Amino acid sequence: MTPDDSRPEHDGTGQRDPAVVAALRALGCADTDRLAVDGVPVAELADRFGTPLYVFSAPTLRERARRVQAALGPRVELLWSIKANPSLAVTACLRGAGVGCEIASLGELLVAEAAGHAPASLRFAGPGKAAAELDAALARGLGTFHVESRDELDELARLAAARDLVAAVAIRVNLPSGLGGARMRMGGRSSRFGVDAEQVPELVLAIDAAPSLRLTGLHVYGGTQCFDAAAFVAQARALAEHAARWERDLGVAFDELDVGGGFGIAVFAGDPEFDLDAAGRGLAEVIAAHDRPGRRWFVELGRYLAAPAGVYLTRVVRQKVSGGEHHAALDGGLHHAAAQAGFGAIVRRPPLVVCADRLRAAAETPVTIGGPLCTPADRFAEQLPLPALLAGDLLALLHCGAYGLSYSPTRFLSHAAPAEVLVDGGEARVVRLRGEPADALRGQLP
Amino acid sequence: MTPDDSRPEHDGTGQRDPAVVAALRALGCADTDRLAVDGVPVAELADRFGTPLYVFSAPTLRERARRVQAALGPRVELLWSIKANPSLAVTACLRGAGVGCEIASLGELLVAEAAGHAPASLRFAGPGKAAAELDAALARGLGTFHVESRDELDELARLAAARDLVAAVAIRVNLPSGLGGARMRMGGRSSRFGVDAEQVPELVLAIDAAPSLRLTGLHVYGGTQCFDAAAFVAQARALAEHAARWERDLGVAFDELDVGGGFGIAVFAGDPEFDLDAAGRGLAEVIAAHDRPGRRWFVELGRYLAAPAGVYLTRVVRQKVSGGEHHAALDGGLHHAAAQAGFGAIVRRPPLVVCADRLRAAAETPVTIGGPLCTPADRFAEQLPLPALLAGDLLALLHCGAYGLSYSPTRFLSHAAPAEVLVDGGEARVVRLRGEPADALRGQLP
Repeated sequence: MTPDDSRPEHDGTGQRDPAVVAALRALGCADTDRLAVDGVPVAELADRFGTPLYVFSAPTLRERARRVQAALGPRVELLWSIKANPSLAVTACLRGAGVGCEIASLGELLVAEAAGHAPASLRFAGPGKAAAELDAALARGLGTFHVESRDELDELARLAAARDLVAAVAIRVNLPSGLGGARMRMGGRSSRFGVDAEQVPELVLAIDAAPSLRLTGLHVYGGTQCFDAAAFVAQARALAEHAARWERDLGVAFDELDVGGGFGIAVFAGDPEFDLDAAGRGLAEVIAAHDRPGRRWFVELGRYLAAPAGVYLTRVVRQKVSGGEHHAALDGGLHHAAAQAGFGAIVRRPPLVVCADRLRAAAETPVTIGGPLCTPADRFAEQLPLPALLAGDLLALLHCGAYGLSYSPTRFLSHAAPAEVLVDGGEARVVRLRGEPADALRGQLP
Repeated sequence: MTPDDSRPEHDGTGQRDPAVVAALRALGCADTDRLAVDGVPVAELADRFGTPLYVFSAPTLRERARRVQAALGPRVELLWSIKANPSLAVTACLRGAGVGCEIASLGELLVAEAAGHAPASLRFAGPGKAAAELDAALARGLGTFHVESRDELDELARLAAARDLVAAVAIRVNLPSGLGGARMRMGGRSSRFGVDAEQVPELVLAIDAAPSLRLTGLHVYGGTQCFDAAAFVAQARALAEHAARWERDLGVAFDELDVGGGFGIAVFAGDPEFDLDAAGRGLAEVIAAHDRPGRRWFVELGRYLAAPAGVYLTRVVRQKVSGGEHHAALDGGLHHAAAQAGFGAIVRRPPLVVCADRLRAAAETPVTIGGPLCTPADRFAEQLPLPALLAGDLLALLHCGAYGLSYSPTRFLSHAAPAEVLVDGGEARVVRLRGEPADALRGQLP
């Protein structure tokens, strides 16, 4: 049987599937038989650090940032959406590449700060920031609050006044046009996110009237996994045009325009590539038409920067035949890589999986692979053609640098959390310690 | 607008929806205006312990166990599937009610042990138990290994021999008939779980030939959320009949028969009630036909025992109108109650949600409710009719005693994990400490 002919959607050989080839190329190892990250074979990492294991490539992170920065040009400040991977080391690596940071919780604030970001440089978004969160962020000197409701604005004014502070506010706007082409939309209709455009003047006037608030700008984020560069540009243009109109009508100035992000990463078979250069050219036109001295432009990206820079390594623990079909149980699973197991439907099924040391071997044995959990949901792929597997074999799931561990129910079935390793300059170091079984008891009382 | 007439599937008023009424009755508060757990109003718990908060009712847990034990009769030993809720306190409460325990990881072993279960009384299932797990379980004196592959059997034999121990083994069988009517099937066809029936004799002989192994029994678990008591009984009968045949043909004895569980809990509108008494009567017939002195019969349940005993409390943080629709952002969300937000499609949508202090108030304001995360996936219900909500209002999600916190991506967006409280005898105590934002940095290295 030729897997390519009979089940093209299940071709995980690592040789012919263009998505696998692209993912390997992003890690700098398209032409080898052994998967390596920054030149270090992942098999060596698995031996040294154990499995399951997340591995991140610092050079790939930097290269992703560099490409985006080059496409967007010097007038745009790139922000890292730390929610995509709240790794201290990944965040610090991107900071080193000149990428700022936007946060959505106090925990993310602490990670960003530990990674070297001054709180004053951070932007804090989120539809349900609680009073305690707003207050703690004020106390730490947070930069700009991306306010998403009148409710929140009033609470922030009160809290800032109580601390005798002036909080910088950007209004997150729910534009009527939304973000066309976004796979996961977050605006353009009734939305929990942002403030409807027609309500913005009311908030602008409220900010103006509150001595403890200072209006700094506007923010839009209409959705994610957008593959249409023109739609992204149209959203940025709409924000800039709304800003110009409100400045004229209301007599205010927006010094910061955060035009969002959500650049698509190809995850399903047939996904197009997001045209980064077209996005950059289009945004440059918007900026040229709406720029002025001192105005700052932001683009925020998570998945697009980090997904290709991460690999999840897991070993075959058991293999067997049932009902005439091959099955392999892995030491990793849903509890560490939920998106890869289909949670949230944000990752291509089956995910991009390769045999770590046999990238070019013939994929002639269809096998169902899943983790150790006692649930059929803990399954990465069904009858995926792979080289024949034996217990101990090492598999790598590609494109795991974003929404990996943090998107997963790590407590489910009380297994230890995996370690994380960053490879940089050909050197690997642990950046997140492996958990242990006794973590299941942490914080519990009889 | 009468919600019942126009959108019967969205009636979350707590008055008319039979599932809500049943859930309230399980907590002993069907006829009040204030939700209470074991007589303690949840509003008091929220004030005292903060939100978001999981609350478990010890009386409800005990009552669930008692009803099952009564229906199954004294020949059946009931086991708690700790995976459903790895709470030390919940596990100890059920142990106090005479419920044993089955585990699927080392972490679960440690919780069970801390809850007072002797390791020798535990059963250890799972398709991907790693060598280190098997070995650690041997070292702790684990009771019975539910072996799911020949691979695992050979490794267990080797490890037990190295420790000069004899490991007790029950073979998990993938019966050809499976479990009819199970919503999530785990057998009856090619499966990662268990050993195909025709392969069982080979494993029996291998156990017989291994001095470090001792055959104790058989185990079947064909699926979960089964609403057909007759199907459960048929599976138990099939296991007992297979056992009788193999005993005759192979000259061995099975002293333990674990006939599984998976009793359905009504979660979707229109779900039937699982007929517990019919299951008990049918199983009694199977036992009468296949019993003998010293044989032990096990039934294992997770969700069925615990789901009705738990409530997830969350407050409205922000409310607003967007596109003419009401939206409320809560302090709890997907990161704590993923099943309730639709992950895994195991819980009714919308989930069973009530205003904690207004159970009888008219549900006249359709509102979209979701958590604080920056993703549209963090949404419990869309345009669910509820009493009008204001910031600070307390909502309760019912039926959250199983697959709650442990099924959720608690690290997602780096919010603190919620506390858990057990109420017993009208007294509430914290059984899991609330997390804190700095947990996002735990174990991380630069």
